[in-house]
Amino acid sequence: MLRFECDYSEGAHPKILERLLSTNLEQSPGYGKDDHCERARALIRQACGLPQSTIEFLSGGTQANQIVIASILKPYQGVVCADTGHINVHETGAIEATGHKVLALPSRDGKITAQQIAKLCSAHWTDPSHEHTVQPGLVYLSQPTELGTLYSKAELKAIHQVCWQRHIPLYIDGARCGYGLAAPGNDVTLPDLAQLADVFYIGGTKVGALVGEAVVIPNLSIQRDFRYMVKRLGGMLAKGRLLGIQFEVLFEDGLYLQLGRQAVELALRIRDAFHRCGVEMAFPSQTNQQFPILTREQRDALARKYTFNQWEALEGDRFVLRFCTSWATQPQAVEELCRDIAAVCTHS
Amino acid sequence: MLRFECDYSEGAHPKILERLLSTNLEQSPGYGKDDHCERARALIRQACGLPQSTIEFLSGGTQANQIVIASILKPYQGVVCADTGHINVHETGAIEATGHKVLALPSRDGKITAQQIAKLCSAHWTDPSHEHTVQPGLVYLSQPTELGTLYSKAELKAIHQVCWQRHIPLYIDGARCGYGLAAPGNDVTLPDLAQLADVFYIGGTKVGALVGEAVVIPNLSIQRDFRYMVKRLGGMLAKGRLLGIQFEVLFEDGLYLQLGRQAVELALRIRDAFHRCGVEMAFPSQTNQQFPILTREQRDALARKYTFNQWEALEGDRFVLRFCTSWATQPQAVEELCRDIAAVCTHS
Amino acid sequence: MLRFECDYSEGAHPKILERLLSTNLEQSPGYGKDDHCERARALIRQACGLPQSTIEFLSGGTQANQIVIASILKPYQGVVCADTGHINVHETGAIEATGHKVLALPSRDGKITAQQIAKLCSAHWTDPSHEHTVQPGLVYLSQPTELGTLYSKAELKAIHQVCWQRHIPLYIDGARCGYGLAAPGNDVTLPDLAQLADVFYIGGTKVGALVGEAVVIPNLSIQRDFRYMVKRLGGMLAKGRLLGIQFEVLFEDGLYLQLGRQAVELALRIRDAFHRCGVEMAFPSQTNQQFPILTREQRDALARKYTFNQWEALEGDRFVLRFCTSWATQPQAVEELCRDIAAVCTHS
Amino acid sequence: MLRFECDYSEGAHPKILERLLSTNLEQSPGYGKDDHCERARALIRQACGLPQSTIEFLSGGTQANQIVIASILKPYQGVVCADTGHINVHETGAIEATGHKVLALPSRDGKITAQQIAKLCSAHWTDPSHEHTVQPGLVYLSQPTELGTLYSKAELKAIHQVCWQRHIPLYIDGARCGYGLAAPGNDVTLPDLAQLADVFYIGGTKVGALVGEAVVIPNLSIQRDFRYMVKRLGGMLAKGRLLGIQFEVLFEDGLYLQLGRQAVELALRIRDAFHRCGVEMAFPSQTNQQFPILTREQRDALARKYTFNQWEALEGDRFVLRFCTSWATQPQAVEELCRDIAAVCTHS
Repeated sequence: MLRFECDYSEGAHPKILERLLSTNLEQSPGYGKDDHCERARALIRQACGLPQSTIEFLSGGTQANQIVIASILKPYQGVVCADTGHINVHETGAIEATGHKVLALPSRDGKITAQQIAKLCSAHWTDPSHEHTVQPGLVYLSQPTELGTLYSKAELKAIHQVCWQRHIPLYIDGARCGYGLAAPGNDVTLPDLAQLADVFYIGGTKVGALVGEAVVIPNLSIQRDFRYMVKRLGGMLAKGRLLGIQFEVLFEDGLYLQLGRQAVELALRIRDAFHRCGVEMAFPSQTNQQFPILTREQRDALARKYTFNQWEALEGDRFVLRFCTSWATQPQAVEELCRDIAAVCTHS
Repeated sequence: MLRFECDYSEGAHPKILERLLSTNLEQSPGYGKDDHCERARALIRQACGLPQSTIEFLSGGTQANQIVIASILKPYQGVVCADTGHINVHETGAIEATGHKVLALPSRDGKITAQQIAKLCSAHWTDPSHEHTVQPGLVYLSQPTELGTLYSKAELKAIHQVCWQRHIPLYIDGARCGYGLAAPGNDVTLPDLAQLADVFYIGGTKVGALVGEAVVIPNLSIQRDFRYMVKRLGGMLAKGRLLGIQFEVLFEDGLYLQLGRQAVELALRIRDAFHRCGVEMAFPSQTNQQFPILTREQRDALARKYTFNQWEALEGDRFVLRFCTSWATQPQAVEELCRDIAAVCTHS
Repeated sequence: MLRFECDYSEGAHPKILERLLSTNLEQSPGYGKDDHCERARALIRQACGLPQSTIEFLSGGTQANQIVIASILKPYQGVVCADTGHINVHETGAIEATGHKVLALPSRDGKITAQQIAKLCSAHWTDPSHEHTVQPGLVYLSQPTELGTLYSKAELKAIHQVCWQRHIPLYIDGARCGYGLAAPGNDVTLPDLAQLADVFYIGGTKVGALVGEAVVIPNLSIQRDFRYMVKRLGGMLAKGRLLGIQFEVLFEDGLYLQLGRQAVELALRIRDAFHRCGVEMAFPSQTNQQFPILTREQRDALARKYTFNQWEALEGDRFVLRFCTSWATQPQAVEELCRDIAAVCTHS
Repeated sequence: MLRFECDYSEGAHPKILERLLSTNLEQSPGYGKDDHCERARALIRQACGLPQSTIEFLSGGTQANQIVIASILKPYQGVVCADTGHINVHETGAIEATGHKVLALPSRDGKITAQQIAKLCSAHWTDPSHEHTVQPGLVYLSQPTELGTLYSKAELKAIHQVCWQRHIPLYIDGARCGYGLAAPGNDVTLPDLAQLADVFYIGGTKVGALVGEAVVIPNLSIQRDFRYMVKRLGGMLAKGRLLGIQFEVLFEDGLYLQLGRQAVELALRIRDAFHRCGVEMAFPSQTNQQFPILTREQRDALARKYTFNQWEALEGDRFVLRFCTSWATQPQAVEELCRDIAAVCTHS
């Protein structure tokens, strides 16, 4: 079987393992206060053009979302997001576990708009009995989204402005950040994220690391006491160096961006193979996840040789499927897949 | 500087890194469902003599404690522990974060007794207005304790019996389990823990792993839906194999026990060096943490060359200090320390 | 101004105040253990045909919902309800405050169906990664709903059966229970509620009491330790007699049902007045809340003399409004309103 | 039986019931926005000399404590209090239910000192790994304490200063406030409380009301959005007038202070009766709760005719008992009790 079902099937980029090995017997203080974490922080600050930000390393996306969101919201506030947002559908209520409602807005492509946010806020604040409802206290976006789509810089700026006017922080989930940065149509850079978001995270686990997400906090008022929150929610690793070393490797020679580019290039080959056969894609993704709509026969034919996800069952016995590439995907595997797509989908 | 301040200063045992390297490009399903996790589970079940237990791997002790305890307690219940217990003093309120009170019992040596637990329970249930107070719902022990001491099998059996009679589960925090198993006076084996505890964890991070704790759940009613709790509290790693591979290595040839033995042997040499100079130990530890009581001069003299923790300031300008060894401690470093202890402490 | 904006504008039915006065100097134990609470419990058990149920008195609907739901759900479970449900929209996240997600199902008339619940449950349990999503753990209905509509006995039975098959308890919010029991088309009695629900509450505050809701718990496993939950969430009144005395009065001579009938009869006169002018109602309510759809001119004309709620703004400058009656509504006020409706709405 | 077991055995002061009756059919807006609540707020502001404070009415002490404390603390902060504090021992973990640890300080007489607080704060902030422990975020005192004792103005000022220097708010639980204000040795007035506390509450339930506590919030930053917290934790009564009317009566002609004086005068008669027989009191209370230490025989003799609480069993078969008076205690009952004390305790 050739696996295209997710972007975390393999271990870590070999350079990371080499570095773990070469630094293994260094003695260092625990809990993210070691030199590797400090150097990784410096490299990320540089990549983001943000000399003053706080950076903490965590071990997964759900954990990052839970800790960041619980750090910001007052008890009676909720977090605004797309109804497809990871925090709304795929984290077993990790946000609610910290006492907060997820205020989901309808979305077709994984994105929400500045207008939707503005309308929700206006509705809340003009309601004379607003204290009977959850106050919007934070906006959550994913870049790229769970459906592989991307916000443009103009869209992010508009959302940033709505948030700013209403004193609502903006948080961007970058679990697949590296694949977004590498997308051909993308015009949002790391410094843009650092300027537009009050806090965001740069995903490592899905982009070449063994484990690890780098939470970047430009907003001073969120920086304060953030480490208490990390400890309180079980996110502080004794051997924090494990996370620091990985991000050091990923950011010291542009490896992070390079891994993203490779994976996206392969994903677009898969997309193009589907397009050439006239297969429609469910969402306009330019990133490492592609969502073709196949018939049952096409699906079953490909499933004999490849693993992928079934995203949704549509009417008429058709299915939205998900194919992912990653930093570890082999070009030959993609070529083989493209040939089989042509064979399976052209005939049907 | 030679570091004796904690047991997580270095990376992982080299065999673990080698295995990460050799398995790196295997493709495996995520979230702890891969073959390495399964094999590690099988090895641990065998070591515990427990064919039916559920085993999940988590990334730290605070996280393990938070998830396990929140899985068991009903909302109005609290967890009984020693006032020195890690969950009571050193986890930034991670238990309270899940809505539960820690019911701390006074302890001098890090241990609590069956009698104390029985008395607390009786006081609760005979109080006619017991619903105005937190109901004891779980007992938490550390083996070894935070002070390096150990429960004997007889003590654990007595506690187990009190818990059993009152339908209160028993949870044992084994963050330093490997060092307890290796202590000369210890009579509690892994199969004993598996028989006496409803749930316990075998600490990896402090005993040779990069990161990881193995939660072992003999009790059927706690097994059910435990993975929901792991996900909900941010503990489910996408690349769960990282944890599985490590425990596979630690448990396949007795490495875990061997690492514990080495560290304890070195710690006892340090203890003996203090004893020979007439230095008193604050707690009767036979494990990898030793707590000598030194004068200010002695402390400062040793601090020029070694790092260690100050545990407590006593009256009369004396100090309880903590020296730790680990799987990575070098015998030469210990020899050097012992010579210096003799030099510094004999004269004073 | 004549007020039709809600059903809690006045104090309590005079018989309740008289009883508070006549019992005022009796000495009684606190916290709901007095004779009045006991007698009220006996009367309610009798009215429900349920000799074995536990009954506790609380001081408001949000409190009742919060305590009941938090008593039942496991940490990783959520409560299923209509998207219009009070717990979803109008309680400032009281359910999320206890750590649980509200799983909202789309609804036009305030009701959800057995099919919707069954589908949600199937989708959860057939998802191979279900532990990444919130598990449905309880179904919440309002009878009557927030839109004045009613479940038929057949509908409740179908929901009960779906819940039963999946081991999911059913909870019915009866904030306006008395007005539902009195509706002309209603076929659901108190004994029916007691048989079909695992727990429900009989609302006092909106049906003649000063303050108070009676939580009725037929399900044995929810009964246990319920009082701990009441205390823990701030719901246990020192002078619990205040609640017991009120329900004693409401249930000793059929007063509760009588107050409901009066209010519904007046509400239906208002409905009929609108109908006669060709005004459409937004929801088919037979209870004490009526929701006419008026033009801006009609709305403004009535607003000169009457208070009512604006429920929703529709396209075309039309508005869904809410008129409520209660046990305290004066028949003359309704007559006057009906005359004005005829005058205002016929001409337009 | 003559009841001295608590101060909430009877209903409400008759003037309150009269007022409920005379205002019963007034129509008013819900949720504490009616004229009676507004007038009660004005009267309390006047009594406190605090024109700008926010005042909200709640229905019990546990609820007030839970809502106030959860409003102030950040997630990783705890509340400092005496180990005898009501929030620590007698609220079924209501504070932990909101995610916060209670940081209990040892106390013999129910009070804590400025020095204890200062020491705890210093220990926290000088700990280099302070983020591993709960941050002190609020100080909670009871005035009078659960043991009937009182803070002097000098003591409160010292605590206020320690809190102020560390930016930690001070919260005073005044469940029995009226009895403290009336104590002969008391030098702390309502305006003093309003100046020294960031938030406090004036207890109604135990001092003449049916139900109700008035939370007074001088601190501007705690005022903001407080009503969201009230709603979210189930504390907002639909018929808020019930609470407003009661406090209106209690504060319009000095009734609140007068009821306190009566009860304290009677309690001191009981105390003096014990003193005259040489019975020792466990705590130096000048308020409505008295704690004599009796032998088993003395206890059993009095228990034949009177109800009271057993507070604690001492060595030597002696018992700390609690006798309470209230606004409703009859002078004749106290006279009879004093005669019996003389008879029972003199002979033994």
